[in-house]
Amino acid sequence: MTYREDVEGLDASILMHPRVWEASGHVENFTDPMIDCKQCKARFRLDTLTELISEKNKEKALKELDASLLVKEGSLDDKFTAVLEDANLSVKLLELLGCPQCGNKGTFTQPRKFNLMFKTFLGPVDDAANIIYLRPETAQGIFVNFLNVLNSSRQKLPFGIAQIGKAFRNEINTKNFLFRTREFEQMEMQFFCKPGSDMEHYEAWKERRIAWFKSLGMTPTKLRFHDHPKDKLAHYARVATDIEYEFPFGWGEIEGIHNRTDFDLSRHQQYSGKSQQYFDDESKEKFIPFIIETSAGASRSFMAFLVDAYYEEEVNGEQRSVLRFHPKLAPIKAAIFPLVNKDGMPEIARKIESDLRPYLRIFYDDKGAVGRRYRRMDEAGTPFCITVDTQTLQDQTVTVRERDSMQQVRVAISGLLTYLLEKIR
Amino acid sequence: MTYREDVEGLDASILMHPRVWEASGHVENFTDPMIDCKQCKARFRLDTLTELISEKNKEKALKELDASLLVKEGSLDDKFTAVLEDANLSVKLLELLGCPQCGNKGTFTQPRKFNLMFKTFLGPVDDAANIIYLRPETAQGIFVNFLNVLNSSRQKLPFGIAQIGKAFRNEINTKNFLFRTREFEQMEMQFFCKPGSDMEHYEAWKERRIAWFKSLGMTPTKLRFHDHPKDKLAHYARVATDIEYEFPFGWGEIEGIHNRTDFDLSRHQQYSGKSQQYFDDESKEKFIPFIIETSAGASRSFMAFLVDAYYEEEVNGEQRSVLRFHPKLAPIKAAIFPLVNKDGMPEIARKIESDLRPYLRIFYDDKGAVGRRYRRMDEAGTPFCITVDTQTLQDQTVTVRERDSMQQVRVAISGLLTYLLEKIR
Repeated sequence: MTYREDVEGLDASILMHPRVWEASGHVENFTDPMIDCKQCKARFRLDTLTELISEKNKEKALKELDASLLVKEGSLDDKFTAVLEDANLSVKLLELLGCPQCGNKGTFTQPRKFNLMFKTFLGPVDDAANIIYLRPETAQGIFVNFLNVLNSSRQKLPFGIAQIGKAFRNEINTKNFLFRTREFEQMEMQFFCKPGSDMEHYEAWKERRIAWFKSLGMTPTKLRFHDHPKDKLAHYARVATDIEYEFPFGWGEIEGIHNRTDFDLSRHQQYSGKSQQYFDDESKEKFIPFIIETSAGASRSFMAFLVDAYYEEEVNGEQRSVLRFHPKLAPIKAAIFPLVNKDGMPEIARKIESDLRPYLRIFYDDKGAVGRRYRRMDEAGTPFCITVDTQTLQDQTVTVRERDSMQQVRVAISGLLTYLLEKIR
Repeated sequence: MTYREDVEGLDASILMHPRVWEASGHVENFTDPMIDCKQCKARFRLDTLTELISEKNKEKALKELDASLLVKEGSLDDKFTAVLEDANLSVKLLELLGCPQCGNKGTFTQPRKFNLMFKTFLGPVDDAANIIYLRPETAQGIFVNFLNVLNSSRQKLPFGIAQIGKAFRNEINTKNFLFRTREFEQMEMQFFCKPGSDMEHYEAWKERRIAWFKSLGMTPTKLRFHDHPKDKLAHYARVATDIEYEFPFGWGEIEGIHNRTDFDLSRHQQYSGKSQQYFDDESKEKFIPFIIETSAGASRSFMAFLVDAYYEEEVNGEQRSVLRFHPKLAPIKAAIFPLVNKDGMPEIARKIESDLRPYLRIFYDDKGAVGRRYRRMDEAGTPFCITVDTQTLQDQTVTVRERDSMQQVRVAISGLLTYLLEKIR
């Protein structure tokens, strides 16, 4: 369902012309510095090496390196990071500490840049002329389609283009389940606006986006903004913030909101030779639009919703595990149980199931005691369980049991769909 | 919406362990024979070369080659295809005919096998040990997840697993717009069943699938089955049929339905060392399930629905272009027009828009004469146009104009959502 008139959908391709990634800066800049242990062949990302080394060893190493010239003020980690940004010092550091994998204190390669884009070859010949990349983000697919959407949608500034789709990064260290994977799903919206109005839209989208996570039931105290300090901004960003969620392993980014200025469309104009300017009817001006980006990880958000919903609690002396998904997110919306498998109850339950199925994802269960069936649906996060019982045979009502409160109400079969749709919306 | 209780959804990954593609046979068999012109470097797929050569030249070449020993009976094309299956004869043939691109009759390479899977490298080192593939089909992602779905869904045979997703083939010759592209969208369902029941399910799915295209308004006379002859069956298939659509360029496959037997799960059992057997509660037997596959091209089907819906016709002496999409497929479900931009009509129209927008994709248009606005929506395939006019101000009704019949009816604003939802379902 489309709630906003000013946002269009798009499904851009995963494989695009390699020049797109030159224009975006990814060919040149989307790299991690890597260092190899020549003995065990392990490869480490320098910028994440700090996670592998204890406080004590860091302190000791810094003393021995006498890196005080690099950073005089700042925390231990600041100083350590400064060391890792210097090629020669980082090799010396590893020689001091030993390889985090094999312990070898011998030889390491110089740090080298490793591009995180997966590359493949178009056509049967595997040579440099035929290299293409798997997109590392959906954003560029939106930028290069800006004029196509503008010319076919009759939108005017400000408006957005949104896309959900796969992106790929050749990460060396994947970790924390779905948090960092090589293949992942993004949901991005790029909002095109007039220069000068950009900060206003940036602030508005920040508020809308954090409200979205809350509206789907994510615990407010586990959500926060992390504004990027000026000296850590990406090359394309004027201001930037992350929406972070407090995972069991710590705070982690689930969405980034960036004021990308006119960087992207200017670069694509320069590399494609095609004007990306917008003519503003009202002011009769021509300009390159500014872009506010809301870039959410669908995979990461999914994990955040999952861990946020998980509870273990005691009910009548028994433990119950429950996924308290917002009804909009629950994979199964309602379950249907005939109390017993006789007396016409299964027939009524099947009839209800087939009436609801075109509208809602339904699970039919007639196995075991009703209490056990409730528990199974609690574990799956199903918000409503409908039971057909002896009273149903008399008055055509069923019980609807709500997952979190475990309260039961009687609802007429004829009003069941409306009842559920209202609760779920 | 899920209409079937016995089909589960899946989103398998695009990058899988390379051994999956050894088990499936793709590493070994998913190849096209290619021949190169050494002069202009053009590369040709031998099996499609026949499309590039005229009847007359084919006849002449066959005479000179004296290929009569290969195929005695059969059409010109049969004989020609037989020549192309022989490596030496196909080189001789090209030398006779000349390169289809540069005309050179000189030197050609011997035919070589070229694998259609895109390959990339996992990790920073580009060597053979790190090769992984972009999936050339979604099917294998379903097969390798069979046990995961079986164990988490409480399904019993027969049941299906369905997936919509991108697949990639390094085609040399892309053609016919969306018909053959390197990146495309599939929608596949793999139906797991007991050996012996396979032909019955195969026949049932054939009928269901062609009925699906018809139920969404595709012209029945432009749909047909093309059963694969026994000697042309893929290595995994016992029987197979294509659903073909008559495109402007001829009949083309939009879906394949295959009885894949126990080939796939047997191969994955062999290559993974993990039993893929199913224990049947009723018969107390263990067996490897048979698979009926319904493999539709989402991109191709999209194109078929698009060309099937396109009509040009004369209306009151003017030409109108109209996309007669089934309402379920129409990208915009309804448009809202205030007749004039005053007298409170825009306010009412905007109110209707915001009431409908949570349920339906809506387009608001207040530019130009209503007739022009109708034509724009006809071209976009919008099934319903709602106009707020002077009568609306008096009795709170609007006109709803249906795209194909161009008939208008008056509907109360209060009943508009129900009216539209019923028409669209």
